[in-house]
Amino acid sequence: MSDILDRLALIIESRKLANGGDPDKSYVARLFSKGDDAILKKIGEEATETVMAAKDARRDGDASKVLYECADLWFHSLIMLAQFDLSPGQVLEELARREGLSGLEEKANRKLVERERNGD
Amino acid sequence: MSDILDRLALIIESRKLANGGDPDKSYVARLFSKGDDAILKKIGEEATETVMAAKDARRDGDASKVLYECADLWFHSLIMLAQFDLSPGQVLEELARREGLSGLEEKANRKLVERERNGD
Amino acid sequence: MSDILDRLALIIESRKLANGGDPDKSYVARLFSKGDDAILKKIGEEATETVMAAKDARRDGDASKVLYECADLWFHSLIMLAQFDLSPGQVLEELARREGLSGLEEKANRKLVERERNGD
Amino acid sequence: MSDILDRLALIIESRKLANGGDPDKSYVARLFSKGDDAILKKIGEEATETVMAAKDARRDGDASKVLYECADLWFHSLIMLAQFDLSPGQVLEELARREGLSGLEEKANRKLVERERNGD
Repeated sequence: MSDILDRLALIIESRKLANGGDPDKSYVARLFSKGDDAILKKIGEEATETVMAAKDARRDGDASKVLYECADLWFHSLIMLAQFDLSPGQVLEELARREGLSGLEEKANRKLVERERNGD
Repeated sequence: MSDILDRLALIIESRKLANGGDPDKSYVARLFSKGDDAILKKIGEEATETVMAAKDARRDGDASKVLYECADLWFHSLIMLAQFDLSPGQVLEELARREGLSGLEEKANRKLVERERNGD
Repeated sequence: MSDILDRLALIIESRKLANGGDPDKSYVARLFSKGDDAILKKIGEEATETVMAAKDARRDGDASKVLYECADLWFHSLIMLAQFDLSPGQVLEELARREGLSGLEEKANRKLVERERNGD
Repeated sequence: MSDILDRLALIIESRKLANGGDPDKSYVARLFSKGDDAILKKIGEEATETVMAAKDARRDGDASKVLYECADLWFHSLIMLAQFDLSPGQVLEELARREGLSGLEEKANRKLVERERNGD
């Protein structure tokens, strides 16, 4: 299971126009052909759909839609990463860097302290 | 690297109030103490920050901020998943289910065809 | 100029299916025919597009796209208000209620104080 | 009621640091002191809160929270407009330009046709 992000990243990479991706046949290639804003717009869309799915899940007691929308959000994150020549492994490394009680919470607490100092 | 999502999920789980998480000491516990809307609001916020970071990255030629914000987005996705008693492994399974040329693109194309039929 | 929101609200109201709106001819009627989630998804989309337009405007020195996207955001807000049988006049009333140095800033400061207390 | 957007725009303008706004006393001045990204982040946040309020409203049958969050969204839109030296009157003009059956729907249908052509 653990390699699925890498495998998806490879497939996505192969859909870049420079790698022979065909916008007429592939959804991912079509997003690449449209460029940054089309891809980023999807991040906003999928985030909104995730939020709506979670509200529905709480009301209906069925969380499966949250899984589905979260998968969409991560999938489009992978497309965005590819568009900026980044890999999911690098995101996982960044997450690992923050891991552990100290690191993880330290980072969050630092942000929090900054926010409180800024009155945000 | 591959297990980092599981390890983070375990840490996050331990921050639930029922598991002894302390909102005064832990950012994650504090989010749990606030409930669904606070967590979902973070999904919207981090998505917006990711979009802004990507716009900056294209202008400045430095993609590292995209990594950082994408990590934030995925991290808060993990908190949301925990809030709904879901695991990152289930999201990866959903992604694996869609994997492969046929599956992946088929799903996207189906959505696309629906959208075009709906005139969306 | 001041009545444009009311005039648009009237046009939008006339696009409701119950008022004879035709999803095959009208974009607004089509949104109504799809229901809440389609309309709310547009709020998320237009907000993301507004943010991207503002980033572009700062880079390019041309703010006109911000106007355009903000108009889209407000237009879809009007559709959402109609979907919930609310009017733009009620939103303006809410804004008026907060108006004035005391009211306006008081509200914002109250929210801020709450956030700082909550460590958000 | 119709002038409330202009009156709010004047108050907001007076909160700019160049006009004597004090970040220690005024929420709006504090946002201006933080700059573009802080303001744009609020657009994303308020859009997400509006979407969540609408989901709650449909479940609870109480639409007042939608009004409240829509007012927040428009209020922060006014701050963004001011940040880019734009006025709400210009947004209303843009909306008026699109007004009327032909104009309004034409624009939306044009966008739709473009999208369908692009397979979006």
